[in-house]
Amino acid sequence: MRATPFLRNVAQSVASAALKERVRRPQYLKKITTAEDLAPQFKNDDYIGWSGFTGVGYPKATPTAIANHVEANNLQADPATKKKFNLFVGASVGPEVEDRWARMDMIARRYPHQVGKEIAKGINAGRINFADKHLSMFPQDLTYGYYSLQKKHGDPRRPLDWAIVEATAITEEGWIVPGASVGATPEILQSAEKIIIELNTSIPDLTGLHDITQSALPPFRQPYLITHPSDRIGTTAIPIDPDRVVAVIESQHPDNTGKNAPETADSKAIAGHLIEFLSAEVDAGRMPRSLLPLQSGIGNVANSIIGGLADGPFEKVQVWTEVLQDTFLRFFDSGKLDFATSTSIRFTPEGFEHFYSHWADYKDKLLLRSQQVANSPEVIRRLGVIAMNTPLEVDIYAHANSTCALGSRMLNGLGGSADFLRNAKLSIMHTPSSRPSKTDPTGISCIVPFASHIDQTEHDLDVVVTEQGLADLRGLAPRERAPLIIQKCAHPDYKEMLMDYYERALHDCLKKGMGHEPHMLKNAFKMHINLQENGTMKVDKWD
Amino acid sequence: MRATPFLRNVAQSVASAALKERVRRPQYLKKITTAEDLAPQFKNDDYIGWSGFTGVGYPKATPTAIANHVEANNLQADPATKKKFNLFVGASVGPEVEDRWARMDMIARRYPHQVGKEIAKGINAGRINFADKHLSMFPQDLTYGYYSLQKKHGDPRRPLDWAIVEATAITEEGWIVPGASVGATPEILQSAEKIIIELNTSIPDLTGLHDITQSALPPFRQPYLITHPSDRIGTTAIPIDPDRVVAVIESQHPDNTGKNAPETADSKAIAGHLIEFLSAEVDAGRMPRSLLPLQSGIGNVANSIIGGLADGPFEKVQVWTEVLQDTFLRFFDSGKLDFATSTSIRFTPEGFEHFYSHWADYKDKLLLRSQQVANSPEVIRRLGVIAMNTPLEVDIYAHANSTCALGSRMLNGLGGSADFLRNAKLSIMHTPSSRPSKTDPTGISCIVPFASHIDQTEHDLDVVVTEQGLADLRGLAPRERAPLIIQKCAHPDYKEMLMDYYERALHDCLKKGMGHEPHMLKNAFKMHINLQENGTMKVDKWD
Repeated sequence: MRATPFLRNVAQSVASAALKERVRRPQYLKKITTAEDLAPQFKNDDYIGWSGFTGVGYPKATPTAIANHVEANNLQADPATKKKFNLFVGASVGPEVEDRWARMDMIARRYPHQVGKEIAKGINAGRINFADKHLSMFPQDLTYGYYSLQKKHGDPRRPLDWAIVEATAITEEGWIVPGASVGATPEILQSAEKIIIELNTSIPDLTGLHDITQSALPPFRQPYLITHPSDRIGTTAIPIDPDRVVAVIESQHPDNTGKNAPETADSKAIAGHLIEFLSAEVDAGRMPRSLLPLQSGIGNVANSIIGGLADGPFEKVQVWTEVLQDTFLRFFDSGKLDFATSTSIRFTPEGFEHFYSHWADYKDKLLLRSQQVANSPEVIRRLGVIAMNTPLEVDIYAHANSTCALGSRMLNGLGGSADFLRNAKLSIMHTPSSRPSKTDPTGISCIVPFASHIDQTEHDLDVVVTEQGLADLRGLAPRERAPLIIQKCAHPDYKEMLMDYYERALHDCLKKGMGHEPHMLKNAFKMHINLQENGTMKVDKWD
Repeated sequence: MRATPFLRNVAQSVASAALKERVRRPQYLKKITTAEDLAPQFKNDDYIGWSGFTGVGYPKATPTAIANHVEANNLQADPATKKKFNLFVGASVGPEVEDRWARMDMIARRYPHQVGKEIAKGINAGRINFADKHLSMFPQDLTYGYYSLQKKHGDPRRPLDWAIVEATAITEEGWIVPGASVGATPEILQSAEKIIIELNTSIPDLTGLHDITQSALPPFRQPYLITHPSDRIGTTAIPIDPDRVVAVIESQHPDNTGKNAPETADSKAIAGHLIEFLSAEVDAGRMPRSLLPLQSGIGNVANSIIGGLADGPFEKVQVWTEVLQDTFLRFFDSGKLDFATSTSIRFTPEGFEHFYSHWADYKDKLLLRSQQVANSPEVIRRLGVIAMNTPLEVDIYAHANSTCALGSRMLNGLGGSADFLRNAKLSIMHTPSSRPSKTDPTGISCIVPFASHIDQTEHDLDVVVTEQGLADLRGLAPRERAPLIIQKCAHPDYKEMLMDYYERALHDCLKKGMGHEPHMLKNAFKMHINLQENGTMKVDKWD
């Protein structure tokens, strides 16, 4: 490290009592420095991993200091001084760091998920090389070296030059107690040559909230011995090699989360259909009265579903999911939620305040795991999870697009949707039946003839539900699915159009002896093309 | 059972000594009868499960007797007597039973895989409701009751009316020792009200070849404690309730397997590229010298690869796969294959002869498991399997079509391809770069702008290889993948056309700020449409 002794000494002498109390390994106290001191050390093309998942638990001070340094020195103006980094984070982080880096063109490559206007713009404009990957696989692929095949500098055993991770405490062994997410942090630490720890003293010491497992490489992997969401199989802190820790800094920035999406009439209608469906499954004996562990995403439909369950007929419910949002606090408080585990808790600022101030009430009901475990096919399938996710669009045979509008424009990425939908006992996609375009309040149908990008296949979905109704696709052939999805789920403005597509395709394909999954390829994307050209998916005719 | 005492007595008195020796539960001897006696008892709309996987281990006598009965009595001529059944088998079975049933229009519904001209014809003509499903999930979905939601007759706890399964021995407890496949037989037995056992005395008693696990329903599932392909976690026979066994019959028909597809110059070229790639992975330290457990399909490319490995640089290789074919015998005999496990052994008649006559040499090197275990994401991911499968077509961003020609015409179904490709450490698809159409020797390009049906997504493939070359896609964004796949893998007749598509799409999409995965939706299927209309995928221009 090239930290000047003077700056380092100043940082160490002004370090807060809170910081010193949380850092329980004395040797680390000598590594206390400032983010400003670290900033100039990051070189163009460096491979950097951050902690963080769904906008919580990410480093705030160092990425901000790096951006400030780049800005203050006008580095991006000159190709000779320009800095673009390869950035790896379990999922999304706060816009004040990532989106700012993207706006300043500081990101060359980004894996495997992102949220933010500027980063999406950079990806879709060709400035950022992004690929989305199943969240359960990203950390293992990182440790395999799959993301550093083109990296020519640094220690060849380490895919990353740097890990910058948020902690809420450091153990005597020097191990890291994370903040409000685990995500890919264990594997990012495992993969990095140099480790920077941001100890966030604005968040309570969360020791005991996490269950940490490390990633062994095949052929040395072991089963995850989890048969219940509350099973602990790991440690409470992330083991690391203390010699790779090059700096400890204090951070006092809270997680920059915003409001949750408010419920709407449509989201409530979808939740109603779903709770009715789950009740019928219980009555038919296909599901216990306590259901099976639930996975639920972020957004207003998820809010309505979890809210509906808090008032619903099911008792002693368990949750096995990726991320918890505020409504889960209400679900806990209703007495109907027994235990929840995820890789991140993404509450609003008010939600966090409530959570931290009632920590004693919640701490035995909650566990955060790494995304490799939380999203693992192994555990999702074993537990028989009920998975619920929102697509951009679903087609009449139940292929779904989770990522690319009009086949090409990346929104946020795949996330963990396919980890859950492929492996759940019940795989459910919920979506409004239509969305507004610029000129037509129902200009975009979420039920289409052929999804313009496919992330979830027909082999993965059991149920599709919109505010219009619910299609139970289990055990149905494609020719049975299409009319059911159209009749139950499509918006009335599109029902006739879609049935017409299906019936013409059926007629043509049966005639040619190719009627398993009838399509008219020349018209498969006609609704999408019409949206691009005329601002609505409503087409006059199919010929 | 309505078996006449007379017929049953005759059957019991003529039962062969071999049969009586193999049936070690005395009470079952009273259940010995003939297939002809059973045939009339099958009613229209019955739900029937068969043992069998990749054309081995299926029941031969009873399905044949049922077809004979239907034919002799001309039952299909009259809607009042017509019999159509709902048929569930782990994967494909011999054409003399299934294809014959399809030709006679005796199949109403079929899950989750099939092979045969007549059954494909019935599916694509709309007479058979077929859906393909991940082979690891089919058995559990059967036990969940997902395929019998519309079944109104019989015991509601049992999704199937009948299980008809082949055995090579019966234990004292009445448990079943299967033939050359396990497949979904444990769950089919678990799901059936009445069980018919066909004891095949033309096959040796295969006790010890199988490792059998039963399917518990969530929330009572347990981990599969397998960390090496040779690990045993179950019993050597399938436990059943003896009271549900309604008949035992003798069968002497061997598995009706044919020749293997011969190697070609293309299949050898593909194998060469792959072995070179794997060697480089070993040299780079990303793979042990013994590789990681291999999964390989059926067909000439698989033959060439496994043949290549028998002559190759890797020692003490392990195999974790779905099905073994003849070349594995050579691989064993080369001394380089240590252990292989699968759910089926599909040898040629000569292969079986060699295998059975050298049973003592092979028996400790081989284990057959149920398809729920052999194809389980849990074990595939844990072991870090190297998965290799053939698609119909792959698109320039690495989405692959495994099932439906021109988006609509079903060939065989998904099989276990997605179980392996989603979860493997290295997910490889191999295909010739082109195939002949009726009028053009390279009329079909296997690299296309947009796959006309998507079973494997861009998030699932690491490597695409054709006889032209190999594209290593790990860590690459879609804009990096497309030119690489086209340049390395496409047939020379299509390279320029595909690059032109990509570059126009890139230009258009970047201009519109939607350039993450550039497409021209209006031209996405132009090559497919041209094939339908003009007999070749070669298009003159994109506008």
